[in-house]
Amino acid sequence: MLTPHGLVEMPAFMPVGTQGTVKGVTVEQLQATAAQMVLGNTYHLSLRPGEGVVEELGGLHAFMGWPGPILTDSGGFQIFSLAQMTRISEEGAVFRSHIDGRLVSLSPEQAVAIQEALGSDVAMVLDHVVALPNELDAIRDAMERTVRWARRCRDAARRAGQAQFGIVQGGLDESLRIECAEQLVELDFAGYAIGGLSVGETPGEMYRVLDFTVPALPRGKPRYLMGVGRPQDLLTAIGLGVDLFDCVMPTRNGRNALAFTDEGPLRLRNRQFERDPRPLETACPCAACRHSRGYLRHLFMAGEMLGPILLSIHNLTYYQRLLAGARAAISEDRFSDYRLAKMQSWGVPIGM
Amino acid sequence: MLTPHGLVEMPAFMPVGTQGTVKGVTVEQLQATAAQMVLGNTYHLSLRPGEGVVEELGGLHAFMGWPGPILTDSGGFQIFSLAQMTRISEEGAVFRSHIDGRLVSLSPEQAVAIQEALGSDVAMVLDHVVALPNELDAIRDAMERTVRWARRCRDAARRAGQAQFGIVQGGLDESLRIECAEQLVELDFAGYAIGGLSVGETPGEMYRVLDFTVPALPRGKPRYLMGVGRPQDLLTAIGLGVDLFDCVMPTRNGRNALAFTDEGPLRLRNRQFERDPRPLETACPCAACRHSRGYLRHLFMAGEMLGPILLSIHNLTYYQRLLAGARAAISEDRFSDYRLAKMQSWGVPIGM
Repeated sequence: MLTPHGLVEMPAFMPVGTQGTVKGVTVEQLQATAAQMVLGNTYHLSLRPGEGVVEELGGLHAFMGWPGPILTDSGGFQIFSLAQMTRISEEGAVFRSHIDGRLVSLSPEQAVAIQEALGSDVAMVLDHVVALPNELDAIRDAMERTVRWARRCRDAARRAGQAQFGIVQGGLDESLRIECAEQLVELDFAGYAIGGLSVGETPGEMYRVLDFTVPALPRGKPRYLMGVGRPQDLLTAIGLGVDLFDCVMPTRNGRNALAFTDEGPLRLRNRQFERDPRPLETACPCAACRHSRGYLRHLFMAGEMLGPILLSIHNLTYYQRLLAGARAAISEDRFSDYRLAKMQSWGVPIGM
Repeated sequence: MLTPHGLVEMPAFMPVGTQGTVKGVTVEQLQATAAQMVLGNTYHLSLRPGEGVVEELGGLHAFMGWPGPILTDSGGFQIFSLAQMTRISEEGAVFRSHIDGRLVSLSPEQAVAIQEALGSDVAMVLDHVVALPNELDAIRDAMERTVRWARRCRDAARRAGQAQFGIVQGGLDESLRIECAEQLVELDFAGYAIGGLSVGETPGEMYRVLDFTVPALPRGKPRYLMGVGRPQDLLTAIGLGVDLFDCVMPTRNGRNALAFTDEGPLRLRNRQFERDPRPLETACPCAACRHSRGYLRHLFMAGEMLGPILLSIHNLTYYQRLLAGARAAISEDRFSDYRLAKMQSWGVPIGM
């Protein structure tokens, strides 16, 4: 995918830079993980510092000092998951800020305008996310509103060079998902996201949704699975045709002393690592892997910031290495073997 | 000063790596600040993870991944400032750990043994620190014990290549300080520290102590002012003959959103910086100064780890640039002008 700030090789994983920073890492450290594109959050940035401040300081790229591509989400998921007392009407959402409780509105047109002020390379349409499980009528209602809002976002978009992606909703229901995908494809977006997953359903249910939704989206455009997920989710979704991912897992789990490795996750607070001289992974080039597991454990036990920092760096590097391996395997037509070998080394049963 | 891990150009400022890490910065970032030597804490490291763990993982240099010189303090100051229910006898100190309340002892011989296990380049003798102001008898008693303990530390030292510094005590009293210095010089240490300052006295009182203590220490050996201080303290002390410093100020103040600059400290939470596009300092090469003050303020307002990280890096860099400037000025015989110009640009009256 070509953007005004460079090429993104697919499939790709985007680290999450919610508030204008990937938590705990500098731009230089983020570049060293081989991240290509980062995600920023419209909901958070519009509440604090406000898109006007970001725009005045040169847009989100200059503001956070990230020279590569940026995708901004629309706020639809945060309104569902973070905001308080949310009321959705046809016009848009009205909710109370999770920061200070003040009343805020977000319409499709506002979501577009904010993202244009932020100046991201890819903007997402505003969607209506509902919890799962839910009544079919509520899921249908949110899906249909998502399509109407997508059209309003498309019609409101003005910024040259900023691509816009539609978002497929429809819960776990095959006909709703396919209907949503078909209507969005008619609106002709630059790419398509699959939203409303990772909200309470099982991994098997999520894979089933991908299995029938991805084929309803055009092959020639990016297909983006929002907010997912574990390493096994990424490889399974890639096998089902997904191109683009974002997730807080590498950084959030890193801050909580969990390191992703080819042998599965290591919980660094565990006593077994107290005197372990080995790095997290021998072959990993990251800054954390210049240290022993014993040292990393000490940092967490002593409450030192450097523990969360180093494990965030390691996990971000792990995800980028995993995706780079997937791209190489795809180009050499051995992706299925790559995925099976990784699942086996993690000890993860297929389908989980 | 030549150490087994390299040369330290004097005067030098050591960042504080209390628990085997300078808080919030990686080794690579620390090297980029131009730090030459770091300080580690015997008290903290012996409590957690324990010097046995550090030794098993290759010693403090390998443990924290710092290839340059390391100085370890003896624990004397932490027993005074951090430990609970401390009882000092001629044998040593017995106190309760500030971490878990368990009873711990630290004698001069143990302080030497712990630092030998840590493998620092410079070890400090165990000293007896008392609060100021205090009764002259108590100050004399602690000073005399400090000298007896210094002799025991000297006699206990076994590790080849590890230098040992004595510590001058004696409160604010001229005759006690000079008596202590003379007795320590007789014991012939590789360097001499001035301890027991920055414990409640005024800057003027501290400068007065330096004024009569430094001349009592040999010119040809490093003179180290422990735990000090503000940029103006460093320059004034250098003018009085001090060669070596350590202080938590650059990192602690950085975590609290205070940035040192040639125009004096900036408090980044201040509303005035909300839309300020300038870096903290135009001429500073650090990672923080690639960003605007507006962005740095946002990081603190949003509670993002990157704020403390970047301001720690800036302040550490600022201190190193200040000391590099002092070294250049000394070698060009214009240190007095250098100090006066800095004091003026900070807006600090001489003597404060």
